[in-house]
Amino acid sequence: MDNCVFCKIINNEIPSAKIYEDDLVLAFLDLGPINYGHALVIPKEHHESSSTIPEATAGRMFKVGSRIGVALKRKLDYDAFNLHLADGSAAGQVVMHAHLHVVPRGVEDGFRWNWRQLKYEDGKMQEIASEIAPRVAADLAEGR
Amino acid sequence: MDNCVFCKIINNEIPSAKIYEDDLVLAFLDLGPINYGHALVIPKEHHESSSTIPEATAGRMFKVGSRIGVALKRKLDYDAFNLHLADGSAAGQVVMHAHLHVVPRGVEDGFRWNWRQLKYEDGKMQEIASEIAPRVAADLAEGR
Repeated sequence: MDNCVFCKIINNEIPSAKIYEDDLVLAFLDLGPINYGHALVIPKEHHESSSTIPEATAGRMFKVGSRIGVALKRKLDYDAFNLHLADGSAAGQVVMHAHLHVVPRGVEDGFRWNWRQLKYEDGKMQEIASEIAPRVAADLAEGR
Repeated sequence: MDNCVFCKIINNEIPSAKIYEDDLVLAFLDLGPINYGHALVIPKEHHESSSTIPEATAGRMFKVGSRIGVALKRKLDYDAFNLHLADGSAAGQVVMHAHLHVVPRGVEDGFRWNWRQLKYEDGKMQEIASEIAPRVAADLAEGR
């Protein structure tokens, strides 16, 4: 897609530190890493949202991301890794070409995701699950 | 696996608010959500690490997670969602059965992931990419 920085990286119009490439995906280092080695895995086909990526491509992204996480542990002495994806601005997506972050993590890396745990009122969980479930089933059945 | 809380949920030994289930994966609501509707997608086969999950199962997890994210937007008026996975304690993994978080997000949900951006010295990115790439290629070629 024109004016998409990740499409330009795929087309070698912008340089990048590539880690892996095949017919479906490309992986390269993030320019502003949370920890050194922080990588991005993107579909070669332009998708703004993760939700339109075909399942085979999604599987390759996840698998490649996970193997990069393992390689970062082994080669750069990290202990763990996060896979992270932001779908939409409100979730933190900045480049509008879907991308999976692979963030290598150390026990004492000085970084923590913040997190919070809300509580459900009685019955609310089942209510939400019942509201969501038919839509998810229908979308998947129709190949969306 | 014995004593795995997620395997017990799969086997219906522990109740959960289920959203989706098929031969490969199960999705249900997280008990301590970042936002209401926060879901988990897990492989039915017990894998501690995301890195040993077969690609087809990984693809299904990603796809189901993404469609749940869309359903949460449509049904509960969220604007966006994060997919998040912690692989290893240092990354925040608590239950040692791999799980993909689907976190619905709103523009004014009062929640932000913290984030930081380090900088690379000249040449360091290429050095790291070159160190990681052969390992990732070998792992994938050998079906790991």
